[in-house]
Amino acid sequence: MDPMAIVERQAQQTDSRILWLVLDGLGDVPREGDAETPLSAAVTPNLDRLAREGCCGRFDPVGPGITPGSGPGHLGLFGYDPSEYEIGRGVLSAVGIDFPLQRGDVAARFNFCTVDEQGRIVDRRAGRLPTAENQRLVAILREIRLAEGIQLFVETESEHRGVLVLRGEGLGHRVGDTDPQRVGVEPHQAAALDEASQRTATQVRAFVAQARRLLAREERANMLLLRGFDTLPAIPSMSARFRLRPVCIATYPMYRGLARLVGMAVPPAPKRLADLPAALEQVWGAHDFFFVHIKYTDKAGEDGDFTGKLKIIEEVDALLPALLGPGFEVVVVTADHSTPWSFKAHSWHPVPALVWAPGRVFRDQVMTFSELACIAGGLGRQPLRFLIAEALAAAGKLAKFGA
Amino acid sequence: MDPMAIVERQAQQTDSRILWLVLDGLGDVPREGDAETPLSAAVTPNLDRLAREGCCGRFDPVGPGITPGSGPGHLGLFGYDPSEYEIGRGVLSAVGIDFPLQRGDVAARFNFCTVDEQGRIVDRRAGRLPTAENQRLVAILREIRLAEGIQLFVETESEHRGVLVLRGEGLGHRVGDTDPQRVGVEPHQAAALDEASQRTATQVRAFVAQARRLLAREERANMLLLRGFDTLPAIPSMSARFRLRPVCIATYPMYRGLARLVGMAVPPAPKRLADLPAALEQVWGAHDFFFVHIKYTDKAGEDGDFTGKLKIIEEVDALLPALLGPGFEVVVVTADHSTPWSFKAHSWHPVPALVWAPGRVFRDQVMTFSELACIAGGLGRQPLRFLIAEALAAAGKLAKFGA
Repeated sequence: MDPMAIVERQAQQTDSRILWLVLDGLGDVPREGDAETPLSAAVTPNLDRLAREGCCGRFDPVGPGITPGSGPGHLGLFGYDPSEYEIGRGVLSAVGIDFPLQRGDVAARFNFCTVDEQGRIVDRRAGRLPTAENQRLVAILREIRLAEGIQLFVETESEHRGVLVLRGEGLGHRVGDTDPQRVGVEPHQAAALDEASQRTATQVRAFVAQARRLLAREERANMLLLRGFDTLPAIPSMSARFRLRPVCIATYPMYRGLARLVGMAVPPAPKRLADLPAALEQVWGAHDFFFVHIKYTDKAGEDGDFTGKLKIIEEVDALLPALLGPGFEVVVVTADHSTPWSFKAHSWHPVPALVWAPGRVFRDQVMTFSELACIAGGLGRQPLRFLIAEALAAAGKLAKFGA
Repeated sequence: MDPMAIVERQAQQTDSRILWLVLDGLGDVPREGDAETPLSAAVTPNLDRLAREGCCGRFDPVGPGITPGSGPGHLGLFGYDPSEYEIGRGVLSAVGIDFPLQRGDVAARFNFCTVDEQGRIVDRRAGRLPTAENQRLVAILREIRLAEGIQLFVETESEHRGVLVLRGEGLGHRVGDTDPQRVGVEPHQAAALDEASQRTATQVRAFVAQARRLLAREERANMLLLRGFDTLPAIPSMSARFRLRPVCIATYPMYRGLARLVGMAVPPAPKRLADLPAALEQVWGAHDFFFVHIKYTDKAGEDGDFTGKLKIIEEVDALLPALLGPGFEVVVVTADHSTPWSFKAHSWHPVPALVWAPGRVFRDQVMTFSELACIAGGLGRQPLRFLIAEALAAAGKLAKFGA
């Protein structure tokens, strides 16, 4: 049996509270010369205290060698097997703009593009048109009407990118991309990939035909390309699986959406780091699992900015005493994946993690919070989805298994 | 989903090259007194440099506590679950003498033995007769003719050991051993263990009856015992699974055969260690995964020869600069299993491994390549079949998973 199935069986509700602090893309690799990472070089007295008093380790978001996107990374973080629940590009985009996707909706990503007089694609991104332009065109496309009973949503993402959502009875989601991923050819016709998606494909073709007429006079964005048709996966909630009452404090829509997928409450969140403690206090009464998401570590990693990443880590460290103010029984600090500054991209390297719960976790000999120090940690190296089991146990939320 | 299923899905072909250097039976246990192993005591500046610049760890060939034969050990090495693909004794013997086994062939191991006048076994190995004797008798047995459409192959292995192969339509491989594994009794009649193997059992009985007549006048080898009937398992190739173009540089037929089972190219290989670099260069252009197999570490372990094992490790170390000459992006050094010199046999202890890929792998604090040093390595302790995932990732051969 999968170990997480036993965790689900033994989970019990208690009053203890878990802070689940995620520094997106935190993991890194030692740089040439001094072998430092942003985390090891940062001055982090508070994180180091938690590491010293707690138990550390390293966790693989998906599996050895696998570089996760944000979806799989967060599924792992929340205790789900990322290979079991796939979140398609269309759904992730909808979720990423905070669109309130419902069960059965079919979502796709679209690009505005430029086609020539023969209808052949000459620019797949319509010159990366400004977001304001995108919004103007989306307002036009919203006039499109489809068959009786089919609701249409057209939403701006940013620049040339947008999201299309169809809502109605009997809409399968297995529709092929219209985006051929190259120029010099016409877009594909939307094709149903199974019988249940025939109606969807018909409606998508109708949408594209009307869109083309409405955009015909545009200079750059005179057509659009669709890809990543998908529907919400049926993911059991964290409260059903672990008897938690989880809440998400995240600024970026993508992570708010991912939290919603697993049934978290998602109240409005502050833009500034300094306002996080107040946001936590506001939801204190009704929850026992507090997912706090910090995006900026990942952004600095993607920008190849060692010092920037280090500085954000130090800012979060300085904020910790206030964050811990209300008094959590268990504190977890970790990441959804590594984003080494030298890669400027996500990577497969395991993420460092600490679990703090005085008198409850095995206090190992790790004295600072860093990727290297965590190698010697008591949690060892495990799949990321098991981390929540360590936290639930530390919080007294897992009953004894067997007599 | 099994992590390796995701690895297969994300695998992509690139130009980067992986050296997969296997020192057979390398792993050992610290000896009484100075706690040295042949690997830790050997002077290995080149392996130590790779360990220092790379990432180390320990890998379980099959699972905790399980001592693998050469088949399972190498399946793990090549990224396969050894418990999923069983290679029977007959197939391993055929493969081990470089017999070109085809899909559907049924292979069995045989021993020449001595029976008394009542047909009871008195010596299961016919006094370990010389290989030349074996070859003379095999030439006689090749005169045996079976039913129309059944091809028979009788091959010498060494001493009293040989291989029988039947080829033809409708030959199931589930036939019981004729070897009762003890003396004082008659050999078993070959019995079909399922309906599909009835024809095979009939042919085997016919073969044994004729063999007995042909061998009747022999003093020692006047009968034979069969065991380990099996057929080639349907193993997907490494190129299908990982999009690799693998090649095997191994001298011993067993390892060449195992490499063939997973679809490697198997060109002729040199007998002397010193000729390995030239052999690598010859196949450089057409491949991106270079499995180089060194047998002598295992032999020294089996002989209980600490110093001998140490010396071979030093020889390989001295050869490394030449081996690395062509310039690999990723270098892996490891073993298929441990063969502690004090055991004189394979053992279950995890094998040490290093993955070298500058700027790509997590550079841990392991400064020398030894079983003990690898305990603190960044790769941790993992199933051996995951090692290839670490190497593929380091080589840029695994695409990001999920959006």
